[in-house]
Amino acid sequence: MPAGTLLYAQSGGVTAVINATASAVLQAARARRVPVLAARNGILGALREDLLDTSSLTAAEIKGLAHTPGGAFGSCRLKLKSLTEDRAKYERLLAVFRAHDVRWFLYNGGNDSADTALKVSQLAAEFGYPLTCVGVPKTIDNDLAVTDCCPGFGSAAKYTAVSVRECALDVAAMAETSTRVFIYEAMGRHAGWLAAAAGLAGAGKDDAPHLILFPERVFDEADFLARVDAVVKRVGYCVVVASEGIRTADGRFVADAGGKDSFGHTQLGGVAAYLAGRVKDALGHKVHWALPDYLQRSARHLASQTDLDQAMAVGRAAVECALAGQNAVMPVIVRDSDTPYHWHVDIAPLSRIANREKTMPKHFIRKDGYGITAAARRYLTPLITGEAFPPFGRNGLPDYVMPDIRPVPRRLPAWHG
Amino acid sequence: MPAGTLLYAQSGGVTAVINATASAVLQAARARRVPVLAARNGILGALREDLLDTSSLTAAEIKGLAHTPGGAFGSCRLKLKSLTEDRAKYERLLAVFRAHDVRWFLYNGGNDSADTALKVSQLAAEFGYPLTCVGVPKTIDNDLAVTDCCPGFGSAAKYTAVSVRECALDVAAMAETSTRVFIYEAMGRHAGWLAAAAGLAGAGKDDAPHLILFPERVFDEADFLARVDAVVKRVGYCVVVASEGIRTADGRFVADAGGKDSFGHTQLGGVAAYLAGRVKDALGHKVHWALPDYLQRSARHLASQTDLDQAMAVGRAAVECALAGQNAVMPVIVRDSDTPYHWHVDIAPLSRIANREKTMPKHFIRKDGYGITAAARRYLTPLITGEAFPPFGRNGLPDYVMPDIRPVPRRLPAWHG
Repeated sequence: MPAGTLLYAQSGGVTAVINATASAVLQAARARRVPVLAARNGILGALREDLLDTSSLTAAEIKGLAHTPGGAFGSCRLKLKSLTEDRAKYERLLAVFRAHDVRWFLYNGGNDSADTALKVSQLAAEFGYPLTCVGVPKTIDNDLAVTDCCPGFGSAAKYTAVSVRECALDVAAMAETSTRVFIYEAMGRHAGWLAAAAGLAGAGKDDAPHLILFPERVFDEADFLARVDAVVKRVGYCVVVASEGIRTADGRFVADAGGKDSFGHTQLGGVAAYLAGRVKDALGHKVHWALPDYLQRSARHLASQTDLDQAMAVGRAAVECALAGQNAVMPVIVRDSDTPYHWHVDIAPLSRIANREKTMPKHFIRKDGYGITAAARRYLTPLITGEAFPPFGRNGLPDYVMPDIRPVPRRLPAWHG
Repeated sequence: MPAGTLLYAQSGGVTAVINATASAVLQAARARRVPVLAARNGILGALREDLLDTSSLTAAEIKGLAHTPGGAFGSCRLKLKSLTEDRAKYERLLAVFRAHDVRWFLYNGGNDSADTALKVSQLAAEFGYPLTCVGVPKTIDNDLAVTDCCPGFGSAAKYTAVSVRECALDVAAMAETSTRVFIYEAMGRHAGWLAAAAGLAGAGKDDAPHLILFPERVFDEADFLARVDAVVKRVGYCVVVASEGIRTADGRFVADAGGKDSFGHTQLGGVAAYLAGRVKDALGHKVHWALPDYLQRSARHLASQTDLDQAMAVGRAAVECALAGQNAVMPVIVRDSDTPYHWHVDIAPLSRIANREKTMPKHFIRKDGYGITAAARRYLTPLITGEAFPPFGRNGLPDYVMPDIRPVPRRLPAWHG
């Protein structure tokens, strides 16, 4: 049993499988008899010395985390700046680590978190404090560099493809006398990965979704409306998937077109709502839209088995890396082949991942800009393959585990950062 | 083998399990060697003599319909008026029935469809045409009279409860530094059945959803905002479920508060978007909202086993009724006990169902108006119990069946109604 404590923290938007990574981390550490603390609400908990003692969790609770969405210890949106600008915060982190004998720090997040983990490792080296920092990949946006895909994305992608297929069957059945145009808004502020995944819902020329709007392409409203109308005339209805991050030629987010309602109240924007209004005004078709919002990133009931396997694999690998003293690295997914799909975990330096953003390759978007290519299908399909249904209770709901975890007594003065 | 043809048609909004009813109808009729025609797009297909010959469907296709959402033959929103006002349409229906030797008419829909089926049976009797009309219940709104519950509702209710629970875990994990208020918009223009089902997502005092807005109660904005703020202060975040049909004291639908965006374009309304804007303006909390729209009624991937069983049972019973000559009736679900849940199918006259609407009993809504009671839980829980996942393919998507069905050659002149 190595001396010291492992600290695990979750960062940024949660996913359907980030707790599966946590579960794998806890299992791997227990197998090596390494005690694990978790920071409540991510790095904020580390700064506040608000730590949770996972030794109180039963084996069944840890196993249950693997099928529970959300973030078991809480997450946060807090980006630390440079070592110079946020010096006091980084030093506070080290003070907390020292106070609890934290020798391994696992930070489960995206490219911002990779940057934080990297900087913490640099400061520890500067102070001569023996600390191993390991990033653990997580994001539904699939925008991390180096790794072939990001745990969290596959399940959100599966949710998106299945939901769009189901809605399309609904619209197809009703279009003659009811809704002709249906618009589904997918998350993705900068990269259209989830919108692309919706493309898996259909395969034939006139299968839904008929039009996909990517943030990688400039949104041309007149062209879009003409295409919607043409699809309605040809197919009888039109299913549109719109990335929340689409922008017009002047760089304005379409989603930011919110205005005031008739009482002068703020009306919040949204791509789908905006497009629906334009379709109604300009084309006169009956239109419906859906905004799944957090449903798409928390739908553990429809997780992808591939995604779940990868989420757990990076958790296990992170513990192994850390205990082996591999500092400032992140376990990443390497794809060996598309069909049959084979992958393995490799280790990459955080410096190659921190603050970078991977957008969709150009050859994943069809030439006309409104659909995905065969190459995109080859890439995406394995990521949504396999089902990993959670156990359900006799009350008809998934047996999600929300354990109450014991806080660790504070050893330092309160922090007022 | 009885002489004649059975005509089956789907009506109104589709559900996750209306095709399961269709599947059961086709199986039961085949077992009795009765040929089945289906009207394309509901009663509209019957009027147009646009009929489909289900004899071309394989047994595997019919079985597959039971796990496929949407409406296999198409549905429609078309309410026939009184026998006097729409006389020509009713006579046309009879003409089509005669031309194709239709002796049994099964109309799968809600209270409007029950009314149509009843009127057709009356006209047939007046003309001395031997026809047996049977309504088959279907609606996610759960607002049909007589029956204890409606096939289609249980699956939409399960989707709602699971989705709200999943989103609540997401918000709970992020609330410290991100979204504090989350609003989920549920279908239900007149009755809050689906919003009530969301209440199953939590059980403890401070479990999400914290506030449910029912169309059965007047929406008081100031009271609502004060409660949201109180929950955020006490719990750290607040999950709201709002029925699309809530109204203010003057009878105005909250959802109709749409306005214009900054470009003067129509901005479509929506309860969740409106409430989100008010929370942001009045309380300043970061807010997100979800509008699942058709996802909630087409999510076959999350169907309730109880709902599926009942959808198939009413389909089988409808065929048995029809062939036994029980005219102007509808198979209904009778609840024998809550725990353990037992039910059976009974037969009720259409006259007791047509054009009626069942709202939620008053004692299902908590006294403060913002939650459900233990009685509501006892009623709702069995309806979402059991999982009936569809088979999934190696592409990660459900194997939904969309058979191409042979149209029946027309025997009458075209209809210009």
